[in-house]
Parts: sequence; structure tokens; C-alpha cells
Amino acid sequence: MPQLDPYRIFSSEVQTRKIAAELYDTVKSLPIVSPHGHTDPRWFAENEAFANPAQLFVTPDHYVFRMLHSQGVALESLGVPLADGSPTEQDGRKIWQLFADNYYLLRGTPSRMWLDHAFAEVFGIKEEFTPATAKLFYDRIDDCLKQDEFKPRALFERFNIELIATTESPLDDLRWHKMIKDSGWSGRVVTAYRPDAVVDPEHRGFLANVKQFGEITGEDTNTWQGYLAAHINRRAFFKAHGATSSDHGHPTPRTENLSPEQAEALFLRVIAGDATAEESDAFRGQMLTEMARMSVQDGLVLQIHPGSSRNHNAQVFDQFGADKGFDIPKPCEYVQNLKPLLNAFGSHPELTIIVFTLDESTQSRELAPLAGVYPALRLGPPWWFFDSVEGMRRFRQNATETAGFYNTVGFNDDTRAFCSIPARHDVARRVDSTYLAELVTTGRLSKHEAHEVIVDLSYKLVKDAYRL
Amino acid sequence: MPQLDPYRIFSSEVQTRKIAAELYDTVKSLPIVSPHGHTDPRWFAENEAFANPAQLFVTPDHYVFRMLHSQGVALESLGVPLADGSPTEQDGRKIWQLFADNYYLLRGTPSRMWLDHAFAEVFGIKEEFTPATAKLFYDRIDDCLKQDEFKPRALFERFNIELIATTESPLDDLRWHKMIKDSGWSGRVVTAYRPDAVVDPEHRGFLANVKQFGEITGEDTNTWQGYLAAHINRRAFFKAHGATSSDHGHPTPRTENLSPEQAEALFLRVIAGDATAEESDAFRGQMLTEMARMSVQDGLVLQIHPGSSRNHNAQVFDQFGADKGFDIPKPCEYVQNLKPLLNAFGSHPELTIIVFTLDESTQSRELAPLAGVYPALRLGPPWWFFDSVEGMRRFRQNATETAGFYNTVGFNDDTRAFCSIPARHDVARRVDSTYLAELVTTGRLSKHEAHEVIVDLSYKLVKDAYRL
Amino acid sequence: MPQLDPYRIFSSEVQTRKIAAELYDTVKSLPIVSPHGHTDPRWFAENEAFANPAQLFVTPDHYVFRMLHSQGVALESLGVPLADGSPTEQDGRKIWQLFADNYYLLRGTPSRMWLDHAFAEVFGIKEEFTPATAKLFYDRIDDCLKQDEFKPRALFERFNIELIATTESPLDDLRWHKMIKDSGWSGRVVTAYRPDAVVDPEHRGFLANVKQFGEITGEDTNTWQGYLAAHINRRAFFKAHGATSSDHGHPTPRTENLSPEQAEALFLRVIAGDATAEESDAFRGQMLTEMARMSVQDGLVLQIHPGSSRNHNAQVFDQFGADKGFDIPKPCEYVQNLKPLLNAFGSHPELTIIVFTLDESTQSRELAPLAGVYPALRLGPPWWFFDSVEGMRRFRQNATETAGFYNTVGFNDDTRAFCSIPARHDVARRVDSTYLAELVTTGRLSKHEAHEVIVDLSYKLVKDAYRL
Repeated sequence: MPQLDPYRIFSSEVQTRKIAAELYDTVKSLPIVSPHGHTDPRWFAENEAFANPAQLFVTPDHYVFRMLHSQGVALESLGVPLADGSPTEQDGRKIWQLFADNYYLLRGTPSRMWLDHAFAEVFGIKEEFTPATAKLFYDRIDDCLKQDEFKPRALFERFNIELIATTESPLDDLRWHKMIKDSGWSGRVVTAYRPDAVVDPEHRGFLANVKQFGEITGEDTNTWQGYLAAHINRRAFFKAHGATSSDHGHPTPRTENLSPEQAEALFLRVIAGDATAEESDAFRGQMLTEMARMSVQDGLVLQIHPGSSRNHNAQVFDQFGADKGFDIPKPCEYVQNLKPLLNAFGSHPELTIIVFTLDESTQSRELAPLAGVYPALRLGPPWWFFDSVEGMRRFRQNATETAGFYNTVGFNDDTRAFCSIPARHDVARRVDSTYLAELVTTGRLSKHEAHEVIVDLSYKLVKDAYRL
Repeated sequence: MPQLDPYRIFSSEVQTRKIAAELYDTVKSLPIVSPHGHTDPRWFAENEAFANPAQLFVTPDHYVFRMLHSQGVALESLGVPLADGSPTEQDGRKIWQLFADNYYLLRGTPSRMWLDHAFAEVFGIKEEFTPATAKLFYDRIDDCLKQDEFKPRALFERFNIELIATTESPLDDLRWHKMIKDSGWSGRVVTAYRPDAVVDPEHRGFLANVKQFGEITGEDTNTWQGYLAAHINRRAFFKAHGATSSDHGHPTPRTENLSPEQAEALFLRVIAGDATAEESDAFRGQMLTEMARMSVQDGLVLQIHPGSSRNHNAQVFDQFGADKGFDIPKPCEYVQNLKPLLNAFGSHPELTIIVFTLDESTQSRELAPLAGVYPALRLGPPWWFFDSVEGMRRFRQNATETAGFYNTVGFNDDTRAFCSIPARHDVARRVDSTYLAELVTTGRLSKHEAHEVIVDLSYKLVKDAYRL
Repeated sequence: MPQLDPYRIFSSEVQTRKIAAELYDTVKSLPIVSPHGHTDPRWFAENEAFANPAQLFVTPDHYVFRMLHSQGVALESLGVPLADGSPTEQDGRKIWQLFADNYYLLRGTPSRMWLDHAFAEVFGIKEEFTPATAKLFYDRIDDCLKQDEFKPRALFERFNIELIATTESPLDDLRWHKMIKDSGWSGRVVTAYRPDAVVDPEHRGFLANVKQFGEITGEDTNTWQGYLAAHINRRAFFKAHGATSSDHGHPTPRTENLSPEQAEALFLRVIAGDATAEESDAFRGQMLTEMARMSVQDGLVLQIHPGSSRNHNAQVFDQFGADKGFDIPKPCEYVQNLKPLLNAFGSHPELTIIVFTLDESTQSRELAPLAGVYPALRLGPPWWFFDSVEGMRRFRQNATETAGFYNTVGFNDDTRAFCSIPARHDVARRVDSTYLAELVTTGRLSKHEAHEVIVDLSYKLVKDAYRL
């Protein structure tokens, strides 16, 4: 059996499947626009070969290693690096076999679809991936990786990526972006301004970060005005490296709109290291509104990613550090939390605010009603665990009737798993084609309109929303 | 392509579609019973022609103007009146063209279905509504509106409305209802008792309203007993004008069952203008229980509509007033909140309490389990943003397995958009036919039972629940 | 029309239906493993005939009598016993007719499917159950019940039950389990350790229970160490009677991991009868962690069933006691609540923790992400009101993409309605077959993998997870 059904994801009902396929055919070859993600710009700057199949597919992919860990596989045995630098498994073939032995755990998950897609489409392997074929897969992929056409820039071009955004801290010198630009390569790799390290008083090293932030920007970040000026300065630097957006990963979507005096007083407590948990939270909230104020001036799109309870397992965090699969969604309240920001800037004609959620119960109850009325507000695509067939389907079903299609912003892959990018965009286009086909077959949308909408969802909305 | 697919909404799967169509055929021509809505009784009293297409379809419809506003269209340009009486766009043709230019924003929304239905079925226009056909539509609708058969009473009859309920404040003199009755016209237009203005201490003008309430009823509304007597008195007046229900739009479903002494003390703080936010909330909660107590006596059905965070945008509220699309659902808790009321009156054989929700997560978790055991409790149909194909489908999927069909109350249109009424009831009948057809094709219900249930859902349950 | 469609529950779409049927065919005859339920061990010990149809199907089944009560049928008239021993309806035929008259209320509910299944498959009645056929049904079932092959052990064998677990308090002497074992009958009926009565300070009779607990175990339950030793002792006694799991029905999933000194101080307040509501809650939370600590030693699987607001109607509770259909789900938070337990024991290789929910919004947001990473954590099947076609379908759709199939534990019937057990497992197997078939027809899983997974879901996972 071929690993990739050409009609996958489309409805099993024959008429809907037919129309979904027809819609999909018109967008399957459109360029990928990836306005939010976590690929490493160094890949494209240095254009060195990826190390080996395990380092490409297993060790850095938290979707994969968290699932294996959930059934008792030690993170060390998958090569996940320890924080203290102690050795973990380095033998790519051993990691790969362990991965293959447990591949059945991924049945029914999006990771399974992305991996099968990458094996078949990127590496041309048509066999089924099983414990028995693990070695064959390793050899073939390893062979490929040594060839020039599997180096980062070649894959970027082959994936038909029109633009990809990475995410950097204000403390980053963007050297790799500069190197890419200076290289004369035509690939568009831009940055995005992610200031959590200098905005979140509870971030590790916050005070030192703010000090460094002042040094980098030449502003006095011990004062509120200097601190704001440092952001304005650094945003301009990021803009000069292609950034069209900022991004904010906060515990909650809380926003504040304090008076300048209140905001300054809060900042001074924060910068003195005296802020309570409540004050830290208020400060993060105030900074979203300050960022909106700056966005009105410099045009950066404001992205808000709230609602993850990070590093749930203290021992894993101590041993391995952040981003090890123990970030768990929690309930999120948007209506009261976003009110200060939306009252201040939600109607501004020059601003775009994109909100994401990990709490699907808010899609129909809070987010679609808010995005369906505030001019500046748009809904980000299903994020993280919800970047999946069922997650995307629920998003369209929950949000469309109140927010329509045009208050959404197309697809984000949000990934550092480079080879999954074509697969993820392909899944999104297939799910949207199917959703539209169902509207057509149930008389809720005409077919010629569906043809227009699928292009908007696959290509146009993302470019408009992110100003690309 | 015809704008209205005769099989719309029914499943695309051929066998389910066939059975859905068969079920729908038996109820499509049943009279419309509309027990809860916001049409203007003056229309039916004076029976004057509607002004023009824009005034009929755009300017008063918050579903429509909120979506256009969400993409930057100014409310003024759609003719939405300013609170201070300053002029906004009055040219119906200009508003109409702007509406047509942005009609694509409504793709995938229920408004789109209702509008297409009204254009085709009420006004007989078979073309597609686009920027290019906007003028043609305006002319045809405008022509129609000048004819007698498009006046309110004629449409009421043509829509096959058996009864419609409007909603009035206790301070309303119900003159239009009296005028309708005195006119000898056979159309049944009844009122419903909506006492928020004299029950909610945080309502604008509350104290003046309670004073006026005393004057109207001849009761001393400065005393708790007098205030309660005023309600009893006014409910009787409403009953005499056809009311069979009261309706309560509270921020939360909180109820209280205080002792008479506690309730009186709370009332005295409220009437003195001294109530805290918490006391105001408690008072609203106590009044739901008082209303239930009165319902046991006078038979009015008690409707509770909680969970909207009203007037989210302060600037729009100041400029345009209430009901401008900025009312946003919020999470709602029913189990603890309804406990005092349900413990006091939830088992009363003479009482019907109908609860609505804007928080779909409560349907399977809280509301269906409560309605599936308390004799007095029934579930209202999907409300507001959820009066939609997907919203109704989720309601049936979430509620039926625990509450069954017979603890629900048929459909409410809850609208002031008169021409959407046939469309909305038609959508509900189609969704229910489809849900039942799916039960039949998957062996969960026999076809002859489905035939009985579809009539119950379309016609009988609403008449029973609302005592019509 | 036959009452049981052989293709029931499978998709109406023909290709999916075909594959679902093919998958189902391979598991429909597999033995039933029922690791969590509430059948009465006395049935199997004494093996006496069930009293009559009403006593078998109506009077003890809260799903059934709550629905009839919701439409005004008095619990007394269904024979539900009053707490004070006053007489209620005893005439099985009168109860049965009342049940039949109201059977239409159950349309669309799982109870309806279970009852139809039991009538047809257990008692061989092919007619439709209606008010008119009520007497016929009563007579046939009553006749059957008098025959040996309808006694508990015969039905157990005919139902192909490989193992069934009952649930007992630590204060239970397990006499019936001993009697079953001593009888030489081959049926495996095991107990489960459900210590709420001696763990929950708010349980009726808690202090007396703990005293008795000390007497039974010979430990000094006035001391923290003695109290813990009593649990260890009694768990061993339960293990000797076949228990492989403990079970905990707490109001919330709160857990604590206090220092030994803090835990002891808390226990001393609790045992002195001085605990506040907050302290009682903390104590329950601490005991979940203590139970996990014991499980690491003795291997019992830890089951947590949180989130029911019990005995919502005070009057019914006073008149009829607990478990009368007035237990209502409430919102539940797992991420913070389970953190102390999971940080302490969630990665332990020798432990299995199975968590259930009555709040479906947590499935995709909290539970699947937690179970998809913590090695010790597994997700229990849809529980109580969600033991239903739509509930199971939503569970798979919500949980699979993040937790996969292998962090779930197969099906639990959780019932005391003995004749519903084959029906419930059959429904679960049909829903899972359909879910897998949809993955196959939409190219998300290969058919040979689906064949493996359906056996895992129907039989293997439950045996692994419960160590049977």
C-alpha cells in the first residue's frame, strides 16, 4: 500500500471528496508562506548538511520524543541533551531504531502524517516505516543528507517557500539573517521580534537581560522612557532584517492600559527586582498595550500566544531545560483580559493583532465573537497540539459562523522541524478544502466562491495579515 | 446556479440526505411558532411599509454590521444612528452598495443563509447578490416594499406565523399590543415580561425606573412587599396582553434563595442606591427565585438568558449605545449558580424554567445533566451566535444523549430581523431533520419515531413549553 | 423493523461502514474485560434469580429513572426506595407499564441503545418496546428470570466476561468475593479498593469509619503512621481478593505533596474533627499522593474519578439518599491540580495512574497533553454521561491526536446494570471501529494497522493498563 493516499483527509463521502480534491488541486502548488516559526536561521546562513536522520527527525522534535517518553522511553536514549552537558545517546542508528520500534505510538497523530509525508515526498521512500525497515530508512535518508540537494537552501527552494519567518530575542544580533542577506541568496528568511526575555519579569535572567538590552540599544533601560525607547530602537533593527511582526508568549492573555504614571511606577518596581507575581503579570499585560502603541507607529503585526503552563515537570526542567514536551495548555479567558488592549487599540485602522489559543472552548465563545467585530483583531490558526486534522476542522466549525473566513489569517506552521513544513501546509490546505467542500455539498456556499476562498485561506490572507 | 439548494444543510451522504429530506418534507409547511423574539409590535399595529432595503436588512441587523465593522467599515457609513443624534449615512442606496461590496465577508455564516433565503423566498430574486447586482436587488426590494403584500401584517401571514412574542419592559404601556388587539386583525402578537430595567440595580436609570414602576402599578416600590406586589400586578397586565413568559437577561445564572428578612434587607440597600456590585448581583439572583415563586402562581414560563459581557467597546457604547455587536459571550457556571433556584422550585410540577447558554462547554457538562433530572427545567435552543447550522448540530450532539429531546423546547428565532424569521425556522427544521436522519441511518432510532420527533421539535414542544 | 440494526453506529457512508464492519467483526466476540464497575458481588456469590423485570431494569438504574423524573414522574412510583423505609411502589407490573409509557423520553440516549440491546440479545425479544407491548415484554422477561440460564453466573458466562471488578470500601469484609472464590466457580470477580469513606473528611461518618478502619486492620488510626499502615494492610487484603486497582471519587483532581511533617499535622487536624473545608480538600489531595506511593510498592493501579457535584437536590437527597440522578458534572482543572502528584510519581516506571473526566473541554486541552508525556499517566474512557456514542466519538477526536491510542486504557462500563454490560462494550467496539475506519478511508491510517489497533482498544490495552 502506498504510504500517502492522494485523497487523504478529504471526506470519505464521494461528492464532498470530489469537490475537496478539485479545490485542493488549485492550491496544492501555491508557494508556502510561513510567517511564524522556529527554524534556525543559521541553517540558511551556513547551508551545511543536516547531521543525520535522528538529528533531523527525532532528537529535536518535542512532538515525537514526548510521545515516546509517555510510554517510558528515556529522553536520554533519544539523544535529548542534558542541561549540564552530560552525555546522552549519540548513536544516530540506535536512536533511529528506538524511534522505529515505537513508531506505532504515533498512530492517529499529526506527527505520523508529517513524518510519512517527509519520508515519501522529501526522501522518496515508498516503503512503510516499521522496526524492520528502520535501517533501510536510515541509510537512504543519511545518503540523501550528504547530497547538495538536501542542504537547507536547496530544500527551502524545493519546498517552494516564498518566505519564512524565524523568531529572535531582542538580544540576538541577527547575525545569521545578515549573513543570509549578504550572501546574495534569493531565499526570503526574515526575523520576528520576540521580546519575552526583556518583557517578562519572571523570565530567567530578566534583570541582566534588560541591562544588556540597554547596552545593545544605547538606551537607559533603568528608566521607563529609556526602556520603551530601547524597544522602539530594537524593533526598527528587526524591521531592517525583514521583521513584519512581534510575538509574545505570555502565560495569560491579560492586558492592561495604565496611565503613563502608573505604568512608569510599575516599571520601576519591576526593574528594581521588587515586583510581586501580580505586578509581574500586570507588567506583561501593560507591555502588550505598549507594543500595540509601537505597532501603530512602525507597522509590526502584534501576535499573542497565551495559555501554556510551561515546564510542568520540575525534574525534567532541571535535567533537560525548557521545551521538552512538558508545556501543557490551560484554560484561558480572553473577554476581560483583552478588554484594555482592545478598548485602546482594537479599532485602530493601522493595526493588526493576531491572537492564538490553546483552549478550544474559547473559539466559538470568545475569540470568534471578538474577532467578528473588532477591526484590528484577527484569529491565528490552530496552534501547537491543534495543528492537526481534527484541530483545524474544529477551528473552522467553531469560528467561521461568527468570525467568517476573513478574520482569520491563513496557516502558520510554527515549527523547527524543517522537513515537516510542506506536510503541515499540505494538511492545512486539505482540511480547508474539505471544509469548503462540505459547505458546497450542503448548499451553504457556491462552488465558485469556494474556489476563491481556498486561495485566500492558502495564500492571500497570510500575506495580507502579516503585511508580506 | 440557483441561490437556494433544495437539499441544503442535509448531509451530503446520500442515504442520510434522503431520510432528512423525507423528515423535513413533513414539517416544512408547519406554522411558525415564535415564542421569544424582538420584532417591533408597532409594525403590526400600524402596518406601515418598511422604509427601504437598507433599513430592512442592514442598518438594524447587528450580525451584519458587526461583520462589516470587523473589517474596518465605519458604523456611521451603514447608517447606524449615533447616540447624540448626529447625522450618519441616510442614503439607502449608498449603504446598500457598501453592504454588497462586503457581502463576501459573510461567507460561511448564518447571516448569509438567512439573507439569501429572504432575497429568494420573500422577494423572489433568483440572481446572486454581488457588488454588480446590488442595484438590481435594491430596486426590486424597494419596489416590493411599496406594495401592500410586503407590509408587516401581510408578511406575517405569508410567513405562516401562528404566534409571535415580542419583549417589553414593565414600564412599557403595551399600546401597540392593545392597538393590534383592538384592530380586529387575526395575527397573534403577544408580549413577554422582561423586567431587567427594574430588577438589575446596575441598569441605567434603575432607581428612576423603580419609582416609575411604582407609579404605573400603584404600589409602593420603596418597600420590598410593595415592589413584589408591583411585579405581580404588572405580570398580570402583561398576561392580559398575551404574555405566557417572562425573560431575564442577567450577566450570570446566579440565583439566591434568601430568607424573607434577608431579601428585604438586601432590597432596602438596593433601593437606597447603596448596593455594592456583589449585592447587586445577589439581588438579581434573588429576583430569579422571586420570579419563579410568582410563576408558580400566574403560570408565566421563566426564561433565563445569562452570560453575555455587554458593551465590550466603551467608545462604541458611548457613541452608538447598546446592542452594537460588542456583546461577547463569557464562561458561565450553572451547577452552583442555579442550585438555590432549582432546590426551591426545580421540582415544582406547575413551573417551567427555560435556560439558555452562550457557553457551549456547559451543554454536555452542566445543562443536559440538570435538565435531564429536574422536572421544571428545560433547555432553550442554541442562542445568538449559536443560532447556526454548526451551533444547532453541536447542541443536539452535546445535549441529546443526556437530556433527550423532550427536555428541549423547539426553536426560538430571538430576532428583530423580520424577514429572517422564515429562514431561521427553516434552518432549524433542516438541522433537526438531518440529526434525526443520522440517528436513523446509524440504527439509533427507528424511522417512524424520527417522524414523530421531527414534528415535536418543529411544532409541538414549543407550544407545550411556552403554554401556547 | 428489527430493533437492532447490525450496522448500527457505523458511519452511514458506505465505504467507511464497510471497513468499520470489517474491523468490528474481528473483535465482536472477544471476551469482555470489565476492570471498573459496580455490579453486586453478592449476585455471583449467591447466584439467586433477579427479582423481576422492573427490579432488573428500572428501579436501580439512575439513567432511566432520572429521565422519567425529569418529565415529572415521581421516583416513588418507580419503586425507588425511600431513605426512611416508607413504602414506595412495589408492583413490578405497574412500574413496568409506567416505564413503557415513558420509553419515548429515552430516544437518542445511550440507555435506549442498551435497553434495546438487552431486550433483543439477552431476552430474545424482537418486538418494539412500546406501551402496547409492555405486558408482553414483562411476561417474557419474567419467565426468563425464573430459569437457571438467566441467573447471574449463567449470564456472566453467556456475556463472555473474562473478568469483572466490583468496587468496595475498606470497611467491607469482602465476604461475597470470598464466597465466590470458595465456591469453585470459575468466573473471575475481583474487588477494587475504594477508600473514600476513610479518606474524605467530609464523608458521612468519616470519624467513625476511621475508628472502624483501625479496628479491622489492627492499626492505630489515630496516628498518621498507623493510618497509613492501615491502608497498606487493607490494600494487601483487597489484593488477596483479586484487586489490581484502587479508585478515588473526589470532588476535584486536587493533589498535594506535603512534607511528612505537614502531612502528619494535617492528618491530626482531620482526625480531631477540626478540619476546615480547605483542609479537608487538601487532605484528600495528599491522600492521592500517598496512594501513589503505596501503589509503587504494591502495584495497585490508581484510578481518579473527579468532578461530580453530588446530591445537587437537597430534598431528594434527604428523602432518597445518594445516587439518585442528581450528581452533576462541573468544570474541572487538571494541569495545576495534578502537578504535585505527577511531579512526585508521574514518571515512575512501576506506576499506572488512570484519570477520568466529566469535563470534556479538558480532553484536548489538558488531559491528552498530560497523558501524552507523563509515563505513568493514562486516560480513562468516557465516563458516566459520556459513555455514549457521541461522547466516545468526541473522546477519540479530542484525545487521539495528542495522546495517541496507547495512552488510553480501553473501555470501562462502570455500571451496576448487569444486562447492559454486553451492550456497552458492544457500543464501544462499534464506535472505535468507526473511528478507525474513518482514519483508514481518509488516508490517515493503513488498514492493517487499524486491525491491530481495534484489538488493542477492545481487549489488550485494558488488560495491560489494569495488570489483569
